[in-house]
Amino acid sequence: MEFSEHIKTANVEDVVLRQPLHPPSRGTLCITGHHLLFSDREEGSSRQVLLLLRNIDAIEKSVENLLGYSCVFTNAGNSQKSVENLLADSFLFANAGNSQKRISGSSGTITIKCKDLHVLQLDIPGMEQCLNIARSIETLSCLDSVSEMYPFFYRPSDANLPDQWGLSSPEKHYSQMKELHDRWRLSTVNRDYLVCPSYPPAVIVPKNIDDDMLEKVAKFRQGGRFPVLCYYHRKNGTVIMRSSQPLTGANRKRCREDEQLLQAAIEGSDKGYIIDTRSSQQALQASMTGGGFESKSCYSSWKRLHRQMERGKALQESLIKLVEACGDEYHNMDRWLSKLENSKWLSHVQTALSTAGLLAECVERDGHSVLVYGSEGKDSTLLISTLAQLIMDPYCRTLEGFLALLEREWVQAGHPFQQRCAHSAYSHARLQQESPVFLLLLDCVWQLWRQFPLALGFSEALLLRLATEAYASNYGTFLCNSHQERCVLGLKENTHCLFQALLRPRERDCYSNPLYEHTELAIWPSVHPQSLQLWRGFFLRRTPQARHLEEVQEEIRNMVIKWGKQADALSVCEGVKMFSLNM
Amino acid sequence: MEFSEHIKTANVEDVVLRQPLHPPSRGTLCITGHHLLFSDREEGSSRQVLLLLRNIDAIEKSVENLLGYSCVFTNAGNSQKSVENLLADSFLFANAGNSQKRISGSSGTITIKCKDLHVLQLDIPGMEQCLNIARSIETLSCLDSVSEMYPFFYRPSDANLPDQWGLSSPEKHYSQMKELHDRWRLSTVNRDYLVCPSYPPAVIVPKNIDDDMLEKVAKFRQGGRFPVLCYYHRKNGTVIMRSSQPLTGANRKRCREDEQLLQAAIEGSDKGYIIDTRSSQQALQASMTGGGFESKSCYSSWKRLHRQMERGKALQESLIKLVEACGDEYHNMDRWLSKLENSKWLSHVQTALSTAGLLAECVERDGHSVLVYGSEGKDSTLLISTLAQLIMDPYCRTLEGFLALLEREWVQAGHPFQQRCAHSAYSHARLQQESPVFLLLLDCVWQLWRQFPLALGFSEALLLRLATEAYASNYGTFLCNSHQERCVLGLKENTHCLFQALLRPRERDCYSNPLYEHTELAIWPSVHPQSLQLWRGFFLRRTPQARHLEEVQEEIRNMVIKWGKQADALSVCEGVKMFSLNM
Repeated sequence: MEFSEHIKTANVEDVVLRQPLHPPSRGTLCITGHHLLFSDREEGSSRQVLLLLRNIDAIEKSVENLLGYSCVFTNAGNSQKSVENLLADSFLFANAGNSQKRISGSSGTITIKCKDLHVLQLDIPGMEQCLNIARSIETLSCLDSVSEMYPFFYRPSDANLPDQWGLSSPEKHYSQMKELHDRWRLSTVNRDYLVCPSYPPAVIVPKNIDDDMLEKVAKFRQGGRFPVLCYYHRKNGTVIMRSSQPLTGANRKRCREDEQLLQAAIEGSDKGYIIDTRSSQQALQASMTGGGFESKSCYSSWKRLHRQMERGKALQESLIKLVEACGDEYHNMDRWLSKLENSKWLSHVQTALSTAGLLAECVERDGHSVLVYGSEGKDSTLLISTLAQLIMDPYCRTLEGFLALLEREWVQAGHPFQQRCAHSAYSHARLQQESPVFLLLLDCVWQLWRQFPLALGFSEALLLRLATEAYASNYGTFLCNSHQERCVLGLKENTHCLFQALLRPRERDCYSNPLYEHTELAIWPSVHPQSLQLWRGFFLRRTPQARHLEEVQEEIRNMVIKWGKQADALSVCEGVKMFSLNM
Repeated sequence: MEFSEHIKTANVEDVVLRQPLHPPSRGTLCITGHHLLFSDREEGSSRQVLLLLRNIDAIEKSVENLLGYSCVFTNAGNSQKSVENLLADSFLFANAGNSQKRISGSSGTITIKCKDLHVLQLDIPGMEQCLNIARSIETLSCLDSVSEMYPFFYRPSDANLPDQWGLSSPEKHYSQMKELHDRWRLSTVNRDYLVCPSYPPAVIVPKNIDDDMLEKVAKFRQGGRFPVLCYYHRKNGTVIMRSSQPLTGANRKRCREDEQLLQAAIEGSDKGYIIDTRSSQQALQASMTGGGFESKSCYSSWKRLHRQMERGKALQESLIKLVEACGDEYHNMDRWLSKLENSKWLSHVQTALSTAGLLAECVERDGHSVLVYGSEGKDSTLLISTLAQLIMDPYCRTLEGFLALLEREWVQAGHPFQQRCAHSAYSHARLQQESPVFLLLLDCVWQLWRQFPLALGFSEALLLRLATEAYASNYGTFLCNSHQERCVLGLKENTHCLFQALLRPRERDCYSNPLYEHTELAIWPSVHPQSLQLWRGFFLRRTPQARHLEEVQEEIRNMVIKWGKQADALSVCEGVKMFSLNM
């Protein structure tokens, strides 16, 4: 595809950019195949705003001519027709009127609402130019073809495409856990993605379960997601496994190999726990449509625990409601609190953290292995296993460890980023597979960070950056829905890796937590509703607090640089640590 | 009165103290006329808890004997009877039973809920001892006689009773504002408290209004609270005055002197504003019962603005609901947010800040003088005028300036602390004059501090300390309801002054904001509901966050001490400033 087809107006002068917390500025707007670029033309200043079109969730157009005839269109994509009508109407109007002046004197405003909740507004002189720009944005922000997306074009001058892509892999993970090798093995049964399309080529499974058995188990689990190990708890030798639901169906079908696999996983222990992120009612309903759960009689060593977690559409609607509430400028305190409550977002945060806490308790305190799944095993399952690992494992709480965890548990484990993050809270497009599960994870991690400001090696800025990158990125990391899709598109050969980029020295300074102090202890989050707060840094980023946050991050970086050079500042650093607790 | 009459058991050994966030500890409990003292008897530790009985809002007793016969009594004061019955019953039971053992084996638990929301629990061996202690607490925590209260007995070894009591006074305030002297004078018309029982002996009034006229105006204003100057805005020469409502009544009575006084206050300006903290409907209703408001025809240069603020009982009930919600450990997120909303506390915070903002806008932006009152002029009136001064006046934002402001606008201006702070959120005593107006002020100041962490010269710790001191104190500052009452009791001669104590070097280090940066600018708070937060440091002080807060305060002090010695730490200090923004 030629991007230029979709760009009728590539440059507009005299555009006014308005952003919350910034004074308006006047400059030149350019649109390219992947970016919107605004350059301030005032002398002495050099403000540039570069926005990935992919980050745009929705636009609102309002065009106005000299007679004050004004129209507002909301939403991208669907309103193509009406824009054309308007344009035609305007021409008619101008022709029927008395001069060209009306057209040249008319102007338009485009409000751009980004997937990461940034909002900006452009006042564009000339109705036609405005509508051209709007149309280009509408088309180019919604390109379906992954290989046309910007990560395939992004070639920063200071980095070559990496030889080694990524930080972690099941192979690396396995080789790091020598203690496992007696009882667990690395299987490449999925090397051609035939056994499970959403799994990576290698997975960790019990040693005495061979590949033939795995293939049978895969047929018994939704989407082929048979139980695999995702975490080994060194302190007591227990593990976390994840999978999808078993396809027992209404007839309570059995799969001996599945039973053997689970039994092998807890060999030498009296029992294991299954944490099902559905209510028992939901699990029962699922069995009516081919899904199901492990019966007590066939899996006698396993104890099932049900914790209902919201997923899919409900979660997306919760996000939309929350963002709508946050953007409402006119409501009073009661209305705000009531809308916050109605959005249910904080309830989802609470449920996720408490279910992860339950999982961590089973492993760390109760000393038993756990299998976790919901239905497909690609969403809430990953959320819970990731949070539990953060709670228990000191290495996962370092910057590298956290990024490697995300790579293993989300990217490689097959969270369908492309489907889930296709739209965010502003789009009026019909909901399909969108769901802010990864955003919910980031929010939960932020709650951990707030409650244990010294225990995490990374900063809030990292979480904010990840929230943006998941929706629109220069990097290939969050593209596609599975390892297989990435492989087909040659993602490793043709794009840069975000996680590697975040570990380069400059970024590391940015995203490290200078207050970090290693602790071996588990960090048990309080899940009392009073202990959980709205993630203002993300959801209220349009408010003045957000600017403070950016300044804080800037200062953290400065301090880290300073500390590198200045040894005795450490005593003052102790003081700084305490400050960050006061939130 | 002899305190010893009320103390049947003065010492109990083997008491277990339980406090949130602390491990239980075992030690000796002593009760004196004013204090509960717990001393840890473990070797090597020296934990002592000293609690002013006056700080106790409610106690709950639960006594239990060996057969598990258990009773819970809630509340102090009213349940005297039932305690005695229980005691009798227990004796009967013991006598009817088979040994003394049952009595000696029985034990009791007293849960103490403090006015400043601290909660602690004492397990006391011996039912009788437990009930004796409980009864002593019930009696001694509710003493009515001011002169028997602890401030009259408090004689710290490191300080003599001060020669000069307090930081500020109308006289001092007047003498500091030379620019005023042309048009305003200090009147001692109230030197014998005859004109206005709740005013101090000296007040600032327009120069051409003589004392005879003031006496007439006083008769026209509720409780004699005629309009007096409380703030002079140097930038533009406008002033804030406060008073009580005019007693126009249903017949629209006039008072020429009142009209002249107000006219004199805005001499040379085209108009002034009256901010009435009642709705116009409420003002109208008040006129039916003898109160009222300034009619447009008689006060043609004054524009009335109504902003309804909750007061009295409604505010107290709001506090009770909020504290109840904060203490509820079992509720889910929806219930918490819904209870938070239902308590309306944050709405009151919002209304107070926005009304203060309105007042400050009239003065600073619109350049006109303002008279503010509600009905009595002792509660919301003071709240609004104090907050507006903090918004506009850089000096009021320093530690000294803030304390002096509180002294002038609350203590001397006649906020009835004794009535308003008789009980807090836990007491089940029938509500009389209690109302947490001063606490609401502290909360609003905390919101300012959160939004402008560099602009206030004092720390959150000061606000927490003041919240405690207002309810129970070693100092005489918050005793009584008026200057007159304090004078009669010889408060200045017989008690120490809190505000002076808070400025001694050690306390100053504790309560200063090391991040403070002087700014001449007004600090306009955002009153969007999204911008206001629950004051967790106070309302959730039982949760782990509270402990973090204490550590933070400790560190602030350490850093201040360090900074005194270490010049180059200033650059790091810059960084620290930014941290505190990240809240």
